[in-house]
Amino acid sequence: MIERYARPEMTAIWSPESKYGIWLEIETLAAEAMEELGQIPAGTSKAVRDKANFEVARIDEIEAEVKHDVIAFLTNVAEHVGEPARFLHKGMTSSDVLDTCLNVQLVRASDLLLTGMDRVLAALKKRAEEHKYTPKIGRSHGIHAEPTTFGVTLATFYAEFARGRERLVAARKEVATCAISGAVGTFANIDPRVEEHVAEKLGLAAEPVSTQVIPRDRHAVFFATLGVIASSVERLATEIRHLQRTEVLEAEEFFSKGQKGSSAMPHKRNPVLTENLTGLARLIRSAVTPALENVALWHERDISHSSVERGIGPDATIHMDFALHRLAGVVENLLIYPDRMMSNMMRLGGLHNSQRVLLALVEAGVSREDSYRLVQRNAMRTWAGEGAFLDFLKADEEVSSKLSDAELEALFDLDYHFKRVDLIFDRVFN
Amino acid sequence: MIERYARPEMTAIWSPESKYGIWLEIETLAAEAMEELGQIPAGTSKAVRDKANFEVARIDEIEAEVKHDVIAFLTNVAEHVGEPARFLHKGMTSSDVLDTCLNVQLVRASDLLLTGMDRVLAALKKRAEEHKYTPKIGRSHGIHAEPTTFGVTLATFYAEFARGRERLVAARKEVATCAISGAVGTFANIDPRVEEHVAEKLGLAAEPVSTQVIPRDRHAVFFATLGVIASSVERLATEIRHLQRTEVLEAEEFFSKGQKGSSAMPHKRNPVLTENLTGLARLIRSAVTPALENVALWHERDISHSSVERGIGPDATIHMDFALHRLAGVVENLLIYPDRMMSNMMRLGGLHNSQRVLLALVEAGVSREDSYRLVQRNAMRTWAGEGAFLDFLKADEEVSSKLSDAELEALFDLDYHFKRVDLIFDRVFN
Amino acid sequence: MIERYARPEMTAIWSPESKYGIWLEIETLAAEAMEELGQIPAGTSKAVRDKANFEVARIDEIEAEVKHDVIAFLTNVAEHVGEPARFLHKGMTSSDVLDTCLNVQLVRASDLLLTGMDRVLAALKKRAEEHKYTPKIGRSHGIHAEPTTFGVTLATFYAEFARGRERLVAARKEVATCAISGAVGTFANIDPRVEEHVAEKLGLAAEPVSTQVIPRDRHAVFFATLGVIASSVERLATEIRHLQRTEVLEAEEFFSKGQKGSSAMPHKRNPVLTENLTGLARLIRSAVTPALENVALWHERDISHSSVERGIGPDATIHMDFALHRLAGVVENLLIYPDRMMSNMMRLGGLHNSQRVLLALVEAGVSREDSYRLVQRNAMRTWAGEGAFLDFLKADEEVSSKLSDAELEALFDLDYHFKRVDLIFDRVFN
Amino acid sequence: MIERYARPEMTAIWSPESKYGIWLEIETLAAEAMEELGQIPAGTSKAVRDKANFEVARIDEIEAEVKHDVIAFLTNVAEHVGEPARFLHKGMTSSDVLDTCLNVQLVRASDLLLTGMDRVLAALKKRAEEHKYTPKIGRSHGIHAEPTTFGVTLATFYAEFARGRERLVAARKEVATCAISGAVGTFANIDPRVEEHVAEKLGLAAEPVSTQVIPRDRHAVFFATLGVIASSVERLATEIRHLQRTEVLEAEEFFSKGQKGSSAMPHKRNPVLTENLTGLARLIRSAVTPALENVALWHERDISHSSVERGIGPDATIHMDFALHRLAGVVENLLIYPDRMMSNMMRLGGLHNSQRVLLALVEAGVSREDSYRLVQRNAMRTWAGEGAFLDFLKADEEVSSKLSDAELEALFDLDYHFKRVDLIFDRVFN
Repeated sequence: MIERYARPEMTAIWSPESKYGIWLEIETLAAEAMEELGQIPAGTSKAVRDKANFEVARIDEIEAEVKHDVIAFLTNVAEHVGEPARFLHKGMTSSDVLDTCLNVQLVRASDLLLTGMDRVLAALKKRAEEHKYTPKIGRSHGIHAEPTTFGVTLATFYAEFARGRERLVAARKEVATCAISGAVGTFANIDPRVEEHVAEKLGLAAEPVSTQVIPRDRHAVFFATLGVIASSVERLATEIRHLQRTEVLEAEEFFSKGQKGSSAMPHKRNPVLTENLTGLARLIRSAVTPALENVALWHERDISHSSVERGIGPDATIHMDFALHRLAGVVENLLIYPDRMMSNMMRLGGLHNSQRVLLALVEAGVSREDSYRLVQRNAMRTWAGEGAFLDFLKADEEVSSKLSDAELEALFDLDYHFKRVDLIFDRVFN
Repeated sequence: MIERYARPEMTAIWSPESKYGIWLEIETLAAEAMEELGQIPAGTSKAVRDKANFEVARIDEIEAEVKHDVIAFLTNVAEHVGEPARFLHKGMTSSDVLDTCLNVQLVRASDLLLTGMDRVLAALKKRAEEHKYTPKIGRSHGIHAEPTTFGVTLATFYAEFARGRERLVAARKEVATCAISGAVGTFANIDPRVEEHVAEKLGLAAEPVSTQVIPRDRHAVFFATLGVIASSVERLATEIRHLQRTEVLEAEEFFSKGQKGSSAMPHKRNPVLTENLTGLARLIRSAVTPALENVALWHERDISHSSVERGIGPDATIHMDFALHRLAGVVENLLIYPDRMMSNMMRLGGLHNSQRVLLALVEAGVSREDSYRLVQRNAMRTWAGEGAFLDFLKADEEVSSKLSDAELEALFDLDYHFKRVDLIFDRVFN
Repeated sequence: MIERYARPEMTAIWSPESKYGIWLEIETLAAEAMEELGQIPAGTSKAVRDKANFEVARIDEIEAEVKHDVIAFLTNVAEHVGEPARFLHKGMTSSDVLDTCLNVQLVRASDLLLTGMDRVLAALKKRAEEHKYTPKIGRSHGIHAEPTTFGVTLATFYAEFARGRERLVAARKEVATCAISGAVGTFANIDPRVEEHVAEKLGLAAEPVSTQVIPRDRHAVFFATLGVIASSVERLATEIRHLQRTEVLEAEEFFSKGQKGSSAMPHKRNPVLTENLTGLARLIRSAVTPALENVALWHERDISHSSVERGIGPDATIHMDFALHRLAGVVENLLIYPDRMMSNMMRLGGLHNSQRVLLALVEAGVSREDSYRLVQRNAMRTWAGEGAFLDFLKADEEVSSKLSDAELEALFDLDYHFKRVDLIFDRVFN
Repeated sequence: MIERYARPEMTAIWSPESKYGIWLEIETLAAEAMEELGQIPAGTSKAVRDKANFEVARIDEIEAEVKHDVIAFLTNVAEHVGEPARFLHKGMTSSDVLDTCLNVQLVRASDLLLTGMDRVLAALKKRAEEHKYTPKIGRSHGIHAEPTTFGVTLATFYAEFARGRERLVAARKEVATCAISGAVGTFANIDPRVEEHVAEKLGLAAEPVSTQVIPRDRHAVFFATLGVIASSVERLATEIRHLQRTEVLEAEEFFSKGQKGSSAMPHKRNPVLTENLTGLARLIRSAVTPALENVALWHERDISHSSVERGIGPDATIHMDFALHRLAGVVENLLIYPDRMMSNMMRLGGLHNSQRVLLALVEAGVSREDSYRLVQRNAMRTWAGEGAFLDFLKADEEVSSKLSDAELEALFDLDYHFKRVDLIFDRVFN
């Protein structure tokens, strides 16, 4: 985890204090259930709730000797609780605690991430509405294609992040399970009703069948989902980086007072936030492959997944959380230059209407192949900087014999391209 | 695509004939809609349906000149259809055809994959029921833990593949979209009702908003889902490879008459199918990262995703399809050795009951820490091969002062471990 | 392997005929050595050389029964050779043949790839020399920074591909090994001198120690090296895509007569080759992770690596080979527009000299922090389009009190930036 | 970076203090050179050496305002140095400092890693020599194949890590470069002799040509090399995990006094260290793909690589360093059980000699195909547990007509398999 790309809300979820707190809650809830089932003495869970505590340093100290984190934790708790502590963890295996805790953390992380997604979505919606009809050239292959509006561009991102949000909700559900099923998942030494109680209290579903561990295909889905969302972040970041290029400059990251763009060149205003987001996307995505490699544990489990998850669990969620808020901020404060959008569109001498001319020629009875040829030969002259596309068309006899000057001029009307913007906004935002 | 790991049903989906057939269907359906809307002459779609055809070799020939596959295709179709062909593709962009076609192929592939998943699930269920109560040692870290049944082991895989099936249904839905929205997705030159018509006829949903292309976050989810399922295949394959090890030999891949295990060592019977599945899982997973890298296309699109998809589209679905059927065959024909499962379990001198003794001591009033110490010191002697665990426990005064011989013997009863197998099967299969 | 991204020279290396031909050569060379050592009857290798042959279809037929490719091959060869064939493969294991063959194929592939690298290097050098002094703005973060030359830009790529070439030579050496060491690598049934003979004749080094297989860390290095070179291809492809953007248009892929850029928009000339290369880079890189996952085979070997290598072996080398030649062609034919490079550089009103002004102010006794502030405040006005940078500087009293008009003007001399181009070319090309 | 998998020696390299210390050294060395060249006032570098200092907290404070780390650092240094500080960084760009610093850190990290490799190699050699002639069954596909020795097994790992060491030396050289070339790498405002001086003093080579940054293909090679070594770690870890399986138990991780294997099952002794190493290998490998994605920066640079490297730089080197020492410890203390190796080998009733019998039959005039059939039919009976392989062979008339009992018995001599162990050790260790 890189501190400069972390927000305290998410970091807190992964602190040792948070983890041991969840462990204690799981053990206490399990004891509560066993008590109700008459399997351990009445009063145990109350005693635990009253007296239980833990110290991270002390746990570390015990672990250094026993080399087992859950045993170290239970020993430390017993130092506070005394006699009743011996009923804690009865019939449970460490993984019951560790895996249920991990899922609680991932669920909490998901909830925070959903908040981040909502902020991104709100920002995109607001800016899309502001620029619903701001004309801007659409570009395929980095080359001018046909006009669109900046609002429509932002709508494509809104729709993508809305899909990402749904996927995150589904991924949250994948990991929102609890297993308290004992050493190899057979409930031999623990009553399944304990699992049900703990699951319910923690807002989780009981895992239908577990080995010693909660199956890791669930976590693979979770991290793969973050990888997809990170790639959507990268797409939006890349869009903005392109728009901010010196030659394009249709939009720009907000540049705060006192900010310096370069140590050497005082004139620089660089899209450093979106470049940073591009890098963070790579980092977040790097969690996907190890998460997939974690699925094929041996038999009822091995512990190879654990070190991986100690890394990618906090790292991927913390950087994702940071990235979403950084991205939302970029969108909220984005400087948008409609004039430049218009002047850029005009740079190609009207070529963005080439398709309309093509279709009009077909309509007027020319074959598709001939129409293409006619349009392309005039377009290439404009492309080469020899003059305006409309002028060449008017002067081309094969064209003008089919389309009058007035008809040709009508094909260069900009509003024509925006007649379905309303429909698109309807589809996306309603 | 590796031919030896391909089934013709899936390969057919990706043939040039299949692809161009879908292109033609899309163009014809679009013409049909435009005709109904009065935007092209009546009779166009009928003329196309009557006369349209294509030849792969001819398309290749034209493409070599124009360097554009959709134009080459349309030109070839026009050679068959004649005059009415010029209304085909009106107001559409190549990606409308290409992307909708890719999604049709992915949907068809998904349907085949679902059939494969069903075969795996059926095989797992059948064998699980056969061995619902076949005792087998559970292993964590490759070390004997506590007893379970082979049926329960198979149930964990059933549950995992059932989740995989649900994810595949969701992934299918992600890519089951259609875009006929024109050059930059604005519908400037094409009526959105055309898109609705084509989508409906092809069983797809209209993409709410597209750029020039259908957004690639959808495909990233699709391939990531295959990656997760491949990892589940790997987990089951790894399980069987472990069970077939010479020293374990609790199960074995079916070895057909005439088969040879080794060119040098005639005694060999190797788990080559599951090892092969392990490798295929790596190959299928290798599609995930490029699919994620495909999301951040530039502006309204660039074409970098195309070569990637020409590779991973067929490869990942074809190998996944093959792997599912190979896996199903392995499970269906798996040789299972219950006697060996029992004799292996007994190798550790009863140590798999160590937890039960621990819990009984706690129950009898010993602290958890002392109980652990008492059990461990006797267990380590048995571990070292010095004798039976039960005998050592009986002879240990600190233990026998708390638990009588009869009580200790009762802790070694095997059926104890299987009392919740019914419940687990209920949860998984019902 | 995607046929449209394959050249026949490389594809041939991976054909079944090529593979079985290498197998036969290995078996024959081994027989030759055993014969010399008096371990099999004299005349065996001659008999084999005279009569040996194989038919791919017949091998497939036999393999369908025995399910073992090397046995099927030997049986087919024996059908041609008769009696002496029984001395073939004596004391050898299948992997001796398979792995040595794979390495022969990878070595041949490397040699072809080196030719491709050489073509790329030659193209880069030629174009770099042509444009050694063609001024062009350097861009960091996509924003104008300071002037450089297009030759220097190309030199950075030349240096990178030269490094790539060295790495490929090293990777070739990694896989240029031969193992003929028997079932588990102990030479129990085969004389190490056989290995030495085969290795020498094939131009390989004898593997110092093998298990049943040649260790896969070697192949992991090989594919990782292709992954790095693919990323260098992507960097150059990305550079050209940027330069071809409508607003930049400093360079352009050659657009052949008859070529069509878009089915809908006849004016389009898109950088489709470099976008294709970007996608191919993703595909080639996707071989790296499975190659790494192939290293940890179980004990003396399992066969999970095999299916992976049947995929990535041909795919990664074939696509890399194609990519190098496509890239070389792009560079060789690249349309370069020096006038546009100059006019783009001038768009920022002279801001690319901001550092020189900063340094001159420091030189003139102003503190670094104050200098930065002075330069930035004038730069931001020019950035905002209010006028020329030089004019603002002249009019700024705090600046003009330190630097005369003549001194300021001298800071805007373009040649200043190119005084070390010679040195750079010397370092890179000599 | 996961603290529990970190050693302080490596962590120190990546601390802010270490980083800023290197920055200061670079700036001072550059000043030293400029002074010698008469480009800044005499005495500057001495003044800096005498007074320069920095405070991490103060740098953070300044960076919060200017949003540029190098400017923040220089400002803080200037607070200590006063007037002469304004000559620091003259003509340099931030990347000159940042990239050269990163390479210094990677070189230092490499040196530490080489020490770790050496410890692994020493441990492997020592244990290999101890067990040079300890018989152990070789296993392919997890199935008994033919005998080898544990020493030979360890020799294969020694050879692999020796290759890894060479690769690491090459990777270190790849990143051991220095660039002090100014804003876009043209040396417009900085003398190339400054770069040469700094490079020499830091033990680096001058980068032949840089853009604004040191090219990232170098770092891609570096992290890919770590990925390959991590995979070798995984192979050895996997070997040990297999050997420790309950049914195999030929070797075992050292289990310290007081250690607890399971919270629930006091009898457990699990291979947790090698499982942990398996997971760490996944984590380290996860750096490879983002490092490859970092290569294709835009034009003279963008900053997307930076966040990636803030993650993978420390993480991959710290975890690799930890893994090497953990692995060395595992090997040094590995409990090895020769008796169990022998008894396991004998479990298959002599089948590991099947090839020798096959070859003897061929030698005796039987065709290879018939020999295979004869051996396989007797082997399968022993495989099925019906009796000893040798007995069946003696009783098989087709076999005994070719090989006498004495001849058959001689084929079951164990030492036969070890006659080339000396040669192998010679090749590997000398």
